[in-house]
Amino acid sequence: MSEERPRRLDLGVDRAAVLAANRAFYDAFEARDIDAMSDLWAHDDRVVCVHPGWTELRGWAAVAASWAALFGGPQHLQLIVTDEHVVLAGDVAWVSCDENLLAVDGSATVASLNVFARDDRGTWKLLVHHAAPVMSTAGDDEG
Amino acid sequence: MSEERPRRLDLGVDRAAVLAANRAFYDAFEARDIDAMSDLWAHDDRVVCVHPGWTELRGWAAVAASWAALFGGPQHLQLIVTDEHVVLAGDVAWVSCDENLLAVDGSATVASLNVFARDDRGTWKLLVHHAAPVMSTAGDDEG
Repeated sequence: MSEERPRRLDLGVDRAAVLAANRAFYDAFEARDIDAMSDLWAHDDRVVCVHPGWTELRGWAAVAASWAALFGGPQHLQLIVTDEHVVLAGDVAWVSCDENLLAVDGSATVASLNVFARDDRGTWKLLVHHAAPVMSTAGDDEG
Repeated sequence: MSEERPRRLDLGVDRAAVLAANRAFYDAFEARDIDAMSDLWAHDDRVVCVHPGWTELRGWAAVAASWAALFGGPQHLQLIVTDEHVVLAGDVAWVSCDENLLAVDGSATVASLNVFARDDRGTWKLLVHHAAPVMSTAGDDEG
């Protein structure tokens, strides 16, 4: 049974590291910090980003440009992230969570999925940010 | 260089298997086939499903109930899936794609991410279906 221990400890460490990466993402987002945001992502053509209501952006160049545009825009958001659930699967992990967005013109909830992969240095890098707006009249359609 | 070949072939096989699983998901969806849908998913508490506009459903019981409710409802959808992009990461893979939904009362586009993991038998099982409605007035908010 003692053999189990290191693995369990590692899982705890990994979970904490993934949660920390997820929180760093939202910190960079709220702070409109493009350098911190850039550091969090893998910089390759695997990355996918769906901002709420947008079509998919694929590849780091398109994703980076979207964050630059958002951070350069007039909208300042306050984000409260709740209900974070982490799933670990080897060198891949994902967090599903709720983003509670507060802006001057109202509030909204977004159901988000953030997929991370561990790179060669052991750092969890963001590969997918997938943000689905929660609608009050939901339930009629599907996809 | 010959050592590279099996790996490249495997990647091709894996990619095809993941795409086949993704298409089987949409086939089951369009056919309203609850047994086929059930077979596709991992049946554990890791699974997450976000139907367009809904909050997250977590765990197989909640996800299964949602498909039963959708398939028992009045809405019959035709689905055309386009722009499938596969990313392989060991025993995990994901597909981002567009769901073009046609119903009697109109059409809609949904940006979806489907995460699969290979089980002990080598079968790719669905762990996450995350559907984000694409809105015509997108771009004002983020999450």
